[in-house]
Amino acid sequence: MPSSHVADAVAARLDVFIARILDGSTEYGPDATLFLDAAAATLHGGKRLRARFCHAGWLAAGGPEHGTDALWGLGAALEVFQSAALVHDDLIDNSDTRRGRPAAHRALESLHRDAGWQGDAESFGRSSAVLLGDLLVAWSDDMLEAALAEHPHAAMTREEYARMRRDVTVGQMLDITEESAWSTAPADTLLDRALRVASFKSARYSVEQPLVLGASLAGADPATLAALRGFGHPVGMAFQLRDDVLGVFGDPAVTGKPAGDDLREGKRTALIAIARGRLSDADRATLDAAIGDAGLSPTEVTALQQLVRDTGALERVEEMIDDYSAQAETALTGSALSGTAIDQLRELASAAVARRA
Amino acid sequence: MPSSHVADAVAARLDVFIARILDGSTEYGPDATLFLDAAAATLHGGKRLRARFCHAGWLAAGGPEHGTDALWGLGAALEVFQSAALVHDDLIDNSDTRRGRPAAHRALESLHRDAGWQGDAESFGRSSAVLLGDLLVAWSDDMLEAALAEHPHAAMTREEYARMRRDVTVGQMLDITEESAWSTAPADTLLDRALRVASFKSARYSVEQPLVLGASLAGADPATLAALRGFGHPVGMAFQLRDDVLGVFGDPAVTGKPAGDDLREGKRTALIAIARGRLSDADRATLDAAIGDAGLSPTEVTALQQLVRDTGALERVEEMIDDYSAQAETALTGSALSGTAIDQLRELASAAVARRA
Repeated sequence: MPSSHVADAVAARLDVFIARILDGSTEYGPDATLFLDAAAATLHGGKRLRARFCHAGWLAAGGPEHGTDALWGLGAALEVFQSAALVHDDLIDNSDTRRGRPAAHRALESLHRDAGWQGDAESFGRSSAVLLGDLLVAWSDDMLEAALAEHPHAAMTREEYARMRRDVTVGQMLDITEESAWSTAPADTLLDRALRVASFKSARYSVEQPLVLGASLAGADPATLAALRGFGHPVGMAFQLRDDVLGVFGDPAVTGKPAGDDLREGKRTALIAIARGRLSDADRATLDAAIGDAGLSPTEVTALQQLVRDTGALERVEEMIDDYSAQAETALTGSALSGTAIDQLRELASAAVARRA
Repeated sequence: MPSSHVADAVAARLDVFIARILDGSTEYGPDATLFLDAAAATLHGGKRLRARFCHAGWLAAGGPEHGTDALWGLGAALEVFQSAALVHDDLIDNSDTRRGRPAAHRALESLHRDAGWQGDAESFGRSSAVLLGDLLVAWSDDMLEAALAEHPHAAMTREEYARMRRDVTVGQMLDITEESAWSTAPADTLLDRALRVASFKSARYSVEQPLVLGASLAGADPATLAALRGFGHPVGMAFQLRDDVLGVFGDPAVTGKPAGDDLREGKRTALIAIARGRLSDADRATLDAAIGDAGLSPTEVTALQQLVRDTGALERVEEMIDDYSAQAETALTGSALSGTAIDQLRELASAAVARRA
């Protein structure tokens, strides 16, 4: 099944869900409709990466390729949860755009202005985005429970889903902590710290856990689950390292984000940790002073990119991506997964790791 | 069973849960422990109102008074969800304290300062409080699912719980919208709008739905559920109106909040809506200009309290509280609930409505 079919099946499921929510919301009154529409708007677009890994895990565990209602419901729940996480993320990171549209807190700020309401529109946007994210989390649970109702593998799937939520939330906390704690953490621990964040908030959340969720729903045996974890975690690590590279060196025309976005946002990634460890004292002081400065000029960004590149950190990260990819490949070839499943997993991994946006 | 026993049973459940979470969190590393401790700290104290209504609903539906693991798990889930809601609420309302301790975003801000981390401590506190609330929501779901696993009434209980989450989140959104939308909404709709917010975010969430959840877990029949809804909703409305009165006229020494806190926060309550509708044009302009001004002096607060009192709005709200209480009493006496259940519900309602803090 081409990836676009997975995206279509999930989108169809989301459309039905949203229509039902809006139908049942008249008692909340017209102002609530504005919010519900804003929440629904966050569900459009995206790569549907998690739903695609979920489908691949399902297939690997012997689920029929055309899927089931429960599978698409689970995939849709993952995508709604991801939208919730992005709403809170964009708020925390002060990101203005998402998937080519205004970030939710910015959209809500505009809603305030357009309605001619009184008070501080920006503050309203930020406050209501907290609640919008909360509502999306509630919706994702609603979709999950609808999918799992009376399902024979509900307990095992629910447990993995719960684990995923804890892991990604703690991972996000550790991520924002790095922006503060770098100055006090020993320099030789920074790479390990960055990789730990990558493990929780990306490798598990974006790849390993969606794979395992789909497989759990199909009633996977322990060997299949172990093979999917052995494949998924390194793919997820490579996926995040690719993200780190794109965050500093990505082409704005392709990523849709400003050049060097991670530098302005102050992301303490593995790439930055490696570069920092190789810089002279003077250059390290320059990097430390600049990173996280939202007002960096294009010239300053270019200079920082060059500083990082000159350390060889980019080559090192590309090597790490290759190593993780090789680990994932070893997990596949050493497994008893079917040839079809292996082909599909390989293709998805390649799309996640070799991407340019 | 005295209310303190319900609180003790829920607290014991929470202690076990937190210990298990902390035990299982070593892989997250030491920085995560700081967050998990901060999350656990939000679970202490409070009136345990929702757990108590949950227990009362359970009793009314014939559940044994000493409860079951599932009941205490459900009660604990409600209390953890409430902690999550308060963390996000306090963030949105810029409240500095909660239950006599620093609000979560303030506690996290202090954590940043105490650790000697770099960057803006206040901004870190606000960002990490978004995630802290998210983590608490995940924990509340974990507790709920542990309670409902293989429970015969899981489906019905889960459905009501999901409804509760949507209602309170939309209710909160409508609440913050009122602070912005009052200026453009027709004056004669403001009371109805305030009562609608009270219905979703308080009457349902704090009273009706906890009652129905406890009863659902006990396998209540439709007549019992209808009686509990008929009782719970007006009690919850009276509970919120009492809150509105305390928010303007409460004694700081008893409420633990500054005098006239709702005026500074700009809460558009039923009390304020009624007063506003009765003011002269000049006094209404005074009220509109002052409400929501966090910098109101004690003298200005006293003057506003007098302005509201002189309209007779306070007497009107007290009448409404009496009317709602009478409706609740009628629902009880017209029901087939047992005498013991009725006594307990009456006692809880009285505590919720007649309180001074």
